Amino acid sequence: MTEDRTNDYEVLVAWGDCDAAGIVFYPNYFKMFNAATDALFASAGFPLRRLIDEFGTVGYPMITTSAQFHLPNRFGDELIIRSRALVWGRSSFEIEHQVFKGGVLTLTGHEKRVWAQSDGAGGIKSLPIPDAIKAAV
Amino acid sequence: MTEDRTNDYEVLVAWGDCDAAGIVFYPNYFKMFNAATDALFASAGFPLRRLIDEFGTVGYPMITTSAQFHLPNRFGDELIIRSRALVWGRSSFEIEHQVFKGGVLTLTGHEKRVWAQSDGAGGIKSLPIPDAIKAAV
Amino acid sequence: MTEDRTNDYEVLVAWGDCDAAGIVFYPNYFKMFNAATDALFASAGFPLRRLIDEFGTVGYPMITTSAQFHLPNRFGDELIIRSRALVWGRSSFEIEHQVFKGGVLTLTGHEKRVWAQSDGAGGIKSLPIPDAIKAAV
Amino acid sequence: MTEDRTNDYEVLVAWGDCDAAGIVFYPNYFKMFNAATDALFASAGFPLRRLIDEFGTVGYPMITTSAQFHLPNRFGDELIIRSRALVWGRSSFEIEHQVFKGGVLTLTGHEKRVWAQSDGAGGIKSLPIPDAIKAAV
Repeated sequence: MTEDRTNDYEVLVAWGDCDAAGIVFYPNYFKMFNAATDALFASAGFPLRRLIDEFGTVGYPMITTSAQFHLPNRFGDELIIRSRALVWGRSSFEIEHQVFKGGVLTLTGHEKRVWAQSDGAGGIKSLPIPDAIKAAV
Repeated sequence: MTEDRTNDYEVLVAWGDCDAAGIVFYPNYFKMFNAATDALFASAGFPLRRLIDEFGTVGYPMITTSAQFHLPNRFGDELIIRSRALVWGRSSFEIEHQVFKGGVLTLTGHEKRVWAQSDGAGGIKSLPIPDAIKAAV
Repeated sequence: MTEDRTNDYEVLVAWGDCDAAGIVFYPNYFKMFNAATDALFASAGFPLRRLIDEFGTVGYPMITTSAQFHLPNRFGDELIIRSRALVWGRSSFEIEHQVFKGGVLTLTGHEKRVWAQSDGAGGIKSLPIPDAIKAAV
Repeated sequence: MTEDRTNDYEVLVAWGDCDAAGIVFYPNYFKMFNAATDALFASAGFPLRRLIDEFGTVGYPMITTSAQFHLPNRFGDELIIRSRALVWGRSSFEIEHQVFKGGVLTLTGHEKRVWAQSDGAGGIKSLPIPDAIKAAV
């Protein structure tokens, strides 16, 4: 059961995160989500660097990702990205990100990623996710 | 019937689009998709600047967006992003992006956006999409 | 005398900061520097939001900026950007950023910015920098 | 004498290039400059991919870079970045970028880069720039 474990990743919205409408330019949320996933794994003792060095993976490439936008965020806003693993498959898994500002949910993100290593020919091949990862993250 | 009209937006993958794995960092695809949507509207005679200046909108804020990744793209790759409007609702619409490299589909993107103007209080309110937009885009 | 006051801004290098050579893509340092300048002013009690709202400025647009690169930084590196005001002119000022990793200087940045407000015609006009700013930052 | 050869790299300013002030966020110019340098080399028959594959270099890492900002650019602006090699040293060289909008110079960039290969220990070592490069670029 990993559903209950979450990690909070804090973001202070920078000037360069915002667009000409004065709100966070939505592609930048995906950068934040990617860092939040890295932080989720790191908080469980598995920083991406360790996954690459010890487990021989290329990390966890994205298969599909999505986001739903409820409220805009602006320069100077202090955000908390609450991340959790939702589903663990054999070689894929799903992560959810909820972005809060002052306790209010402003957007959500969802990721389906694959546990993979290089196939030595410029592509990747999926691998079974180690039990230690499933248990810890 | 706008389903058949598409616009091709060309992207030459730059060094800065790629990550430490040597492939396009996926959040950057959303930047490309946003520019491709702008290009789709501009190709129909409705550049975003005109929408803001003449129609009094804030553009077309995103409600939900997603992407499915099939094959990685790399520095120097020449991509074609083929964009089309899929669905026109009363005040929302959906756009699909297909990213081709040498005729091969490498990823797809999907957007649901809203036609909106400022509510004068830091938020937005949706508006009916003008028929001229639905007919042209 | 403000030369002795510095602010340390911490950066954890994210996957998306790095390029296909596995090192921080140098344009991203300028994003970090911009946030570090904002943090320097905020640490003195003058966050950019306050400058815009209370002082009627557009912030502090850049006139010239430069960087010198000594050593590369990589994914997961913990950086400290040490920022200080070097020179205060009548309406312009200079900021220096030093980027340390584990006590080692890896690059330096330099900015010359102007204190300015909108000229109401799409441009800006410079203003004298308030003494309170010079004294505090 | 390569001083007279220039390459024009065209940029259509995208929504995501601009900040909350509605102008291009200056770090994004450095991304454009990097792509313009790649385009300058490619236009001379030496795309970066070829330099890496045939010449065994890591490309041309940056030593110092700077920019001077004269006029802001905005969403939808069509820019021409005119790039040229200014100086060829033994293992370093300098590039200048001039950014024009409708014939008006809006900013300039300057780069000093080094011709280098990996030292096999996570760093780089400089190499003499091949004469073919100096003659062509």
